Amino acid sequence: MERLAEQKCEECHASSTPATDEEIVQFRPQIPDWEIRTIDGIARLSRTYRLSNFAEALEFTYRIGTLAEAEWHHPVILTEWGKVTVQWWTRKIKGLHRNDFIMAAKTDALIPQHEK
Amino acid sequence: MERLAEQKCEECHASSTPATDEEIVQFRPQIPDWEIRTIDGIARLSRTYRLSNFAEALEFTYRIGTLAEAEWHHPVILTEWGKVTVQWWTRKIKGLHRNDFIMAAKTDALIPQHEK
Repeated sequence: MERLAEQKCEECHASSTPATDEEIVQFRPQIPDWEIRTIDGIARLSRTYRLSNFAEALEFTYRIGTLAEAEWHHPVILTEWGKVTVQWWTRKIKGLHRNDFIMAAKTDALIPQHEK
Repeated sequence: MERLAEQKCEECHASSTPATDEEIVQFRPQIPDWEIRTIDGIARLSRTYRLSNFAEALEFTYRIGTLAEAEWHHPVILTEWGKVTVQWWTRKIKGLHRNDFIMAAKTDALIPQHEK
């Protein structure tokens, strides 16, 4: 299977097909540190990254946001001292699309080398 | 009373004095859009800013984070499409210090002109 981190998001509509259970099982080994959290009945991919301090958390947030703009798919990001929590889901389908798994993998690829 | 936005944070210790009720009453007219939210028994100053899109929310987040580093007092920041939520409190005293009101006023001063 092609690596998720190397794929591009496709345009998404309200009629787009959510990720199937079978796809999710296929995708998850590529993003092992992400969990699926259901908030207000909508599934999101969620991961909290630990970083050294606030400045690193802020820089990481900025990198994730820049990626989001480039792919035109946007997460929510919680920035704290030494910690960044990111959640990806697809508002238009009120759930998880293949795009979200791609973005989770791309987010993992942004982790500063010394934090890996 | 001196304007909060023009003051500097002072160094804070576990023994520092929290803001008194009287001070809070004095401070609040300078930060009228902030609310006090109690989370896990600890009071925080909280405000959600509306912005035009994700890119503006990200830039605003970065400006707040840069201010936080400069004053060495750090908030939590939730960045979403068109929305940034900021919370200030003082971990060392598990509550609100004068510093938090100063930072709230300084955060308000960072709002992009066209969003005011």
